[in-house]
Amino acid sequence: MSRFQVRTDLALETREKFEEDNVEIKGVRIEEESAEEGEIKITNVVIETENGAKIMGKPKGTYITLEASNLNDQEEGYHREVSKQLARVLQKLLPKQETPVSILVAGLGNREVTPDALGPRVVDNLMITRHIIREFGKYAFGKQEIHPISSIVPGVMAQTGMESLEIIRGVIQETKPDCVIAIDALAARSTKRLGRTIQVTDTGINPGSGVGNHRHGLNRESLGIPVIAIGIPTVVDAATIVSDTMQTLIEAMSQSTHLKGLGSSLDSLNDSEKYDLIRELLSPNLNTMFVTPKDIDDTIKHLSYTVSEGLNIAFGEALS
Amino acid sequence: MSRFQVRTDLALETREKFEEDNVEIKGVRIEEESAEEGEIKITNVVIETENGAKIMGKPKGTYITLEASNLNDQEEGYHREVSKQLARVLQKLLPKQETPVSILVAGLGNREVTPDALGPRVVDNLMITRHIIREFGKYAFGKQEIHPISSIVPGVMAQTGMESLEIIRGVIQETKPDCVIAIDALAARSTKRLGRTIQVTDTGINPGSGVGNHRHGLNRESLGIPVIAIGIPTVVDAATIVSDTMQTLIEAMSQSTHLKGLGSSLDSLNDSEKYDLIRELLSPNLNTMFVTPKDIDDTIKHLSYTVSEGLNIAFGEALS
Amino acid sequence: MSRFQVRTDLALETREKFEEDNVEIKGVRIEEESAEEGEIKITNVVIETENGAKIMGKPKGTYITLEASNLNDQEEGYHREVSKQLARVLQKLLPKQETPVSILVAGLGNREVTPDALGPRVVDNLMITRHIIREFGKYAFGKQEIHPISSIVPGVMAQTGMESLEIIRGVIQETKPDCVIAIDALAARSTKRLGRTIQVTDTGINPGSGVGNHRHGLNRESLGIPVIAIGIPTVVDAATIVSDTMQTLIEAMSQSTHLKGLGSSLDSLNDSEKYDLIRELLSPNLNTMFVTPKDIDDTIKHLSYTVSEGLNIAFGEALS
Amino acid sequence: MSRFQVRTDLALETREKFEEDNVEIKGVRIEEESAEEGEIKITNVVIETENGAKIMGKPKGTYITLEASNLNDQEEGYHREVSKQLARVLQKLLPKQETPVSILVAGLGNREVTPDALGPRVVDNLMITRHIIREFGKYAFGKQEIHPISSIVPGVMAQTGMESLEIIRGVIQETKPDCVIAIDALAARSTKRLGRTIQVTDTGINPGSGVGNHRHGLNRESLGIPVIAIGIPTVVDAATIVSDTMQTLIEAMSQSTHLKGLGSSLDSLNDSEKYDLIRELLSPNLNTMFVTPKDIDDTIKHLSYTVSEGLNIAFGEALS
Repeated sequence: MSRFQVRTDLALETREKFEEDNVEIKGVRIEEESAEEGEIKITNVVIETENGAKIMGKPKGTYITLEASNLNDQEEGYHREVSKQLARVLQKLLPKQETPVSILVAGLGNREVTPDALGPRVVDNLMITRHIIREFGKYAFGKQEIHPISSIVPGVMAQTGMESLEIIRGVIQETKPDCVIAIDALAARSTKRLGRTIQVTDTGINPGSGVGNHRHGLNRESLGIPVIAIGIPTVVDAATIVSDTMQTLIEAMSQSTHLKGLGSSLDSLNDSEKYDLIRELLSPNLNTMFVTPKDIDDTIKHLSYTVSEGLNIAFGEALS
Repeated sequence: MSRFQVRTDLALETREKFEEDNVEIKGVRIEEESAEEGEIKITNVVIETENGAKIMGKPKGTYITLEASNLNDQEEGYHREVSKQLARVLQKLLPKQETPVSILVAGLGNREVTPDALGPRVVDNLMITRHIIREFGKYAFGKQEIHPISSIVPGVMAQTGMESLEIIRGVIQETKPDCVIAIDALAARSTKRLGRTIQVTDTGINPGSGVGNHRHGLNRESLGIPVIAIGIPTVVDAATIVSDTMQTLIEAMSQSTHLKGLGSSLDSLNDSEKYDLIRELLSPNLNTMFVTPKDIDDTIKHLSYTVSEGLNIAFGEALS
Repeated sequence: MSRFQVRTDLALETREKFEEDNVEIKGVRIEEESAEEGEIKITNVVIETENGAKIMGKPKGTYITLEASNLNDQEEGYHREVSKQLARVLQKLLPKQETPVSILVAGLGNREVTPDALGPRVVDNLMITRHIIREFGKYAFGKQEIHPISSIVPGVMAQTGMESLEIIRGVIQETKPDCVIAIDALAARSTKRLGRTIQVTDTGINPGSGVGNHRHGLNRESLGIPVIAIGIPTVVDAATIVSDTMQTLIEAMSQSTHLKGLGSSLDSLNDSEKYDLIRELLSPNLNTMFVTPKDIDDTIKHLSYTVSEGLNIAFGEALS
Repeated sequence: MSRFQVRTDLALETREKFEEDNVEIKGVRIEEESAEEGEIKITNVVIETENGAKIMGKPKGTYITLEASNLNDQEEGYHREVSKQLARVLQKLLPKQETPVSILVAGLGNREVTPDALGPRVVDNLMITRHIIREFGKYAFGKQEIHPISSIVPGVMAQTGMESLEIIRGVIQETKPDCVIAIDALAARSTKRLGRTIQVTDTGINPGSGVGNHRHGLNRESLGIPVIAIGIPTVVDAATIVSDTMQTLIEAMSQSTHLKGLGSSLDSLNDSEKYDLIRELLSPNLNTMFVTPKDIDDTIKHLSYTVSEGLNIAFGEALS
């Protein structure tokens, strides 16, 4: 029933979908490891070929996912460990250079809509250094050289009248960073992922992703420099959640011993007919809606802090 | 299929449900009118008997609903008209007195979760007068006497460790207002209602209502003084939206000429079996999720302003 | 005692200083008018020559000041009138064109520091149209053509690591507006001005102005397009307030009949000695401090709304 | 010149004033210690007698001050150390009990005015437990018993129309905590103290203290239970800063070899005449103004976090 294009921004979920369907994907390599006594699971999904990219519906590149079941927890030590693992993963993807790398961190999303506020709030807690280095020189922080870090919160189109792409491209032209790190809240397919997964990728932000659905990508092609994206799923599209449950219902009906007669009737429907049936029933304004947990404010507060700590660690250590 | 207790805080929606099912409810009286050349529809639902209350699942009392299709619009003049109608409706429900009525406005909900921030943000724009009257006397505002208005934003239990009821009851004991007006974001059954309906009721806030599901009511019984509640639906429970769509699917299957065989199979299921089928499929963590529009920040910004204007007008004119 | 360079961003205050000292300034033309039955006073200061610019310490150009004594008031009708006058003044300075003028509004300052939050909060209430016109064409709003309005809140250097100039110049390169309107909180010389004066100028924002002291100007030279600046004084520099009071003290001593002996002693000091005396006593960390009223939150809330209304009116009517 | 009642909320500053003047105060005991290799200085001022209280202008009780010169710094380890010292100091003042002590934390001040937002923002990061213990029992957190912590942000009178005292007293009546901890931003006499000093006292909040000048105290007398106050100076009253500088000026004149004649003239003024001279020159609206650093947003962000960490540590360990 692959024609139901339910939306997920997580490469991990796309892969799992194929796994469920027992489809093997050529051109996609997967590696798993775990840290912190098994409490943090790290999965590398590398899309190596154009074919793999086509099947996965995502660009070629590396997608590293940190899964941490207790991320919603307030336990500080655990968050610190996740920050450290995030820093380690990030350093793998940052441009290798022996001199400082100037980095522009872009906090995408809408600060006024709680589940979309992740990016802006990560930026709030970053250690910003570019202006200090420009004023006091490269040894402004005493010891070793330090990366010049700048940041921008572009806002959303309804607030600015501009694409994030336009704003960030303009800022890059003026300030010439070596690399962009874009932080964004993502849409997952499953509510179980919400607030429990961090995806880091060297493919940037691509059209259609994010809570607010970016119309234009932020990636090497559009910005001219490497773009690393860090995303955490905070919503599920309302259409996805309804469509998923309906598929489960139809499948359950087909198999139910309870509903033998019904099962056989549904068997007579092919995938295309099932698809039409669901499409017909989906309210059109569901496309403008999302599903999010009631305690999303806590999730955003804690996770934005965890991610900014991860960035601060990665930037602070990157030259040592 | 009445055993599916899908949740709505709107008396209007409960009534519509019965209307759909062609059930007449004794003890519930309904009146409709319209204002502003038909663009604002006002419906009075009066639950007159205990029997009516039982069927409706809501306490006896008056529920006045303003429906305004363009409330999401930014057109200022239209919002002004809605504020005026709200003021008029509110004045009907306020205690009749010839002397000033001291009013405590309680902005319920969680300021940090956008669709739940309505109450706190209405309070932000209120004209507060109690402290001025206490300092400068009852003619502090020159002309006529004015109602002493105070306000409280109690926050939510995860932030305070206390029930809203405890905080408000304590404040009432100390400051002795004549009446409470509680503002809250509500859950509707249908996404079409979101941000388009204002409900004003003299029954207060009752257990289970609101975006965050109040566990204790705020009403005359619990607070000892009249409680008027003003609510606007800003979310639909995730379980409601899924369950509703599934019912629609099952009904469509029963009727579809396309699916004759299927229909007859489903006919063989009684309501209880249908209910079990859906219940089984509903993911349990959906209960902690809600559905809300992506532009909920705009809705909250405009509607909180419209409601506080309505209150300011009502309080300003109430003695003239 | 002109060597005390007390700081003011208001051309009006600079002029008044000279008036007090009975100094006539060549090359500076002044016109006054009043509106709303005298409650709004409008003063045009036009610096016409380089000589005038040098004496005034401000670039050549037009500085229009609206003084409105009740701006701190909550009275809505009065604010509406100020918004209308602001719109009228603004339209005089906007580029004259028969076709729509695309305008980028820049909300300068630090949203996290109350008296510096004016710019960001004006932008919050603007009607943004550029993205709608780009998607739906120039008749997107039905009737006549409308100006494409975009906005940016660049933040402050401690948050972004970048100059506002860099961000805005980049955004201009990408989006090619015809004109910039920059909104900023200003420093006045006198606490009496705070929250009561709006300055509109076609000279932009110049180095050293604003609450946070911009190091680089935002003007036609630096941005390549016309820049109109709208500013409201919300702080007085702490050094200014102390230095001013000390001068008053010294002058009072010189004249006091009470202190005849003292007067004559002070007469023996020349200006330079008086200057050294004060300078010596001024605590150096006063330079990083500002003075602001305790109810600055109310001022910012009401004035940001008044200014954004003024802009919305000006943009809405500009082509009619 | 003791008749100049310049305002300070810090017992430490009051004492220093007397020290400068070489006045010994009977009934006031002082102890000093230092921690963290001398980087944190801790001073206990104990006002033991009514006479001491009268001279100091503060109620009898214990005032413990932590001075930490680098508090404005972002260095995380250092803040952690300050949090630990604060926890230790706090535990000394908390009621001694072998069973859990239920504590209501009150975050005083105005969230909308940056230097006054300390209290509300400390509360934002507290670990709140009362509701969890009420729902899941006293072993809800596994190991040992834990203190039930609740919190309230009462807002300011312009927002609520009520005194903080009224709100907190009402909440206490309803929820019966054993003890209140009130957090508030304070006024210091010297700009050097701002953001560098934490005062903890068992005397509560007393009339006239705080950035917004509380009119009624929050203390054992008014609330009926012990009240510990934690305060950090974030502003200097504008009148204080001006009056202080003028005194310095007058004193400098009296002593200046440069200004011999002047000195002798001033000698002829007695204190009362000097006082009249300054009073005359002080602009009356200075009383509604405060002085605060331009980077107060950073100070509040970091210090509110440091204080809430201190509280979380104190509450978490208090029973172990």
